[in-house]
Amino acid sequence: MIKEIAGGVCAAKGFTAAGVHCGVKEGSDPAKKDLALILSETECQAAAVYTTNRVKAAPIYVTMEHLEDGVCRGIIANSGNANACAPESHENALEMCTMAATATGLKAQDFVVASTGVIGQTIRLAPIQAGLPGLVKELAHSPEASDAAANAIMTTDTRKKEIAVAVEIGGKTVTIGAVAKGSGMIHPNMGTMLCFITTDCAITHEMLQDALHEVVPRTFNRVTVDGDTSTNDMCVVLANGLADNEQIEWKDDDYAAFTQALRYVCEQLARAIAADGEGASRLITCVVHHARSEDSAERLSKAVVGSALVKAAMFGADANWGRVLCAIGYSKAPFRPEYVDMKFVSAAGEVAVCEKGTGLAFDEELAKKVLTQEEVIIDVCLNEGDHEATCWGCDLTYDYVKINGDYRT
Amino acid sequence: MIKEIAGGVCAAKGFTAAGVHCGVKEGSDPAKKDLALILSETECQAAAVYTTNRVKAAPIYVTMEHLEDGVCRGIIANSGNANACAPESHENALEMCTMAATATGLKAQDFVVASTGVIGQTIRLAPIQAGLPGLVKELAHSPEASDAAANAIMTTDTRKKEIAVAVEIGGKTVTIGAVAKGSGMIHPNMGTMLCFITTDCAITHEMLQDALHEVVPRTFNRVTVDGDTSTNDMCVVLANGLADNEQIEWKDDDYAAFTQALRYVCEQLARAIAADGEGASRLITCVVHHARSEDSAERLSKAVVGSALVKAAMFGADANWGRVLCAIGYSKAPFRPEYVDMKFVSAAGEVAVCEKGTGLAFDEELAKKVLTQEEVIIDVCLNEGDHEATCWGCDLTYDYVKINGDYRT
Repeated sequence: MIKEIAGGVCAAKGFTAAGVHCGVKEGSDPAKKDLALILSETECQAAAVYTTNRVKAAPIYVTMEHLEDGVCRGIIANSGNANACAPESHENALEMCTMAATATGLKAQDFVVASTGVIGQTIRLAPIQAGLPGLVKELAHSPEASDAAANAIMTTDTRKKEIAVAVEIGGKTVTIGAVAKGSGMIHPNMGTMLCFITTDCAITHEMLQDALHEVVPRTFNRVTVDGDTSTNDMCVVLANGLADNEQIEWKDDDYAAFTQALRYVCEQLARAIAADGEGASRLITCVVHHARSEDSAERLSKAVVGSALVKAAMFGADANWGRVLCAIGYSKAPFRPEYVDMKFVSAAGEVAVCEKGTGLAFDEELAKKVLTQEEVIIDVCLNEGDHEATCWGCDLTYDYVKINGDYRT
Repeated sequence: MIKEIAGGVCAAKGFTAAGVHCGVKEGSDPAKKDLALILSETECQAAAVYTTNRVKAAPIYVTMEHLEDGVCRGIIANSGNANACAPESHENALEMCTMAATATGLKAQDFVVASTGVIGQTIRLAPIQAGLPGLVKELAHSPEASDAAANAIMTTDTRKKEIAVAVEIGGKTVTIGAVAKGSGMIHPNMGTMLCFITTDCAITHEMLQDALHEVVPRTFNRVTVDGDTSTNDMCVVLANGLADNEQIEWKDDDYAAFTQALRYVCEQLARAIAADGEGASRLITCVVHHARSEDSAERLSKAVVGSALVKAAMFGADANWGRVLCAIGYSKAPFRPEYVDMKFVSAAGEVAVCEKGTGLAFDEELAKKVLTQEEVIIDVCLNEGDHEATCWGCDLTYDYVKINGDYRT
């Protein structure tokens, strides 16, 4: 039984967080927090996945180094600058860890570092140094503290992404909490955003890494906003063991229960990231089922939520199912067009649009009603096997163009 | 010496064309032509490339059948309906050829058939049958006739795509002319649009097919508008031999001269299609040079012109070069980020933005001037080898969203 609870990244035992405005970006709004700290009172097992982009931001490399030993104590993160491809990027990412260590009395190697924002401009460290004492003072084990951290990592996100769940593992209550940011440059192929997960579960580094690798491909990697995989993507999970459950060392029932809860957390955040894609007005969920394999179902589903033409049609609440068929057609995954059934489903009902690859007559008025809901499900039945996959995306709107036509300046 | 001349698809000896409005789409504007015919007075060698989409429209299959013998006499094409994935699509595509044959006194197998428009709705043949006698009466060997055919295949195109060139081959003047349509669902992986090419060159079917296969991957397949590969894409070349040059049977100098002229024709149309992408306000050309191989240069260049974030930045005339670096990073092609130099070039000058993978300080005012021109070149030097490739795309604008949010209705 997975139960949603309050508290976000501070819900698990022994974790504190904080978020403040320090002015990473010159002249930025003082009301916008831009520096976050998440800390565990004891050492954590840590696992992470990173962007697959060949161009990786400096904080990615520094975090990789710092997690080589599989343990850490906290996360320092900023919005307002990606600290990527700028002079001194690497030195500056290291320096951020050193600053966080000095302010907390820990070591630089104890920190994961993450940055998000514009690429290619040198990050200003002075505001971060000046902001750190205040940030440390704000550290608290409270829902408000998690909220502050969640807000501090947002860029063009319009809503904070935060969740926590409690689950029984080996007779003990284990808690998993997380904050994430998404919005632009969101695409499969990895973490596709920043996500910081904390848990008090007692689990080995190896099992934690395996659980994360099982979950991320089925959650965050199934989200696409615009097909662009960022240079800074990172998903990190810290486990401090304070739940006092028997340590998970094998792929037993406890491991399964933990992984299921972790998947729930990641799936809810993945959906939230898709729904809040830059400029998005609705969440588009594409379920491809009765496929020959999960892999082909996933590729077909991704092609649909990634299609600019499908996304624009969804913005216009236009039941243009031919574009969905066209998108699965160029996905390179195998299927038989002449077997495909398709319908659009939402809170307002459902409308079947295609049977055995051929268009059906349908009620345009009903279709309009179905397609103007907050979440629209594109349901594609391949009639070929019994595998399925679900991917998430959003519609393509005027606001996406507006946000990205003038982001840097 | 390749010389541009007037006449489009009617420039070559022995070719006539026509375009009329017949009302394929119910209630469509009578001023918008929607039915085109291109005819050769003698039998032609014919070569074609087709969409790689697994979902292929009926006219693609019918054309494949009709060109199995390598020869044909003409092309019948309509806009207003894709004749794809609708009941009776295949029968209707065949019937269009039969109708064209009846109206011209030829055989159905003599015809290439092509359709463009919305997917999944049954095409109305009655208007086509009613329109054919008038269409045949309009057939003429004139620039105006080519213009009419070029207009009849347009959908959301805002400008017709038409070109003709003359080139000396074996002491004779050989002419190549073409009309094309592009605009939406434009992406590498094949023909990516409709393109009808006519030539009076004497050339074997085999050499014609080889020339087309050499040229298309370096021209049309290097265009992307929105990453969607249509179900109906087709590029056909008809050669009737009336130029009286010695027939090209080998890969000799004559073959090279013909292929070079064909490439010129296709490259100009490819650029025109990119520049007139749905909603586009400018042509984006990405040149990747000093690469390890042409293949990797092409993949890197395609990733840049295909990136939604780069496209939106170009719309906003924002010199956000980090997005270009990010796009080549996720392209999966090999390169060293730390070797990359980058500049933006246009009629207004050039501005260097990145050297050895690191941002340069640059004049924002000059950058704005450079980026607000009709064509912007993104120049990426990999400093690794001596291969290069050029791809073409366009910016992502409010109008793209507008056009595609409400296309079907």
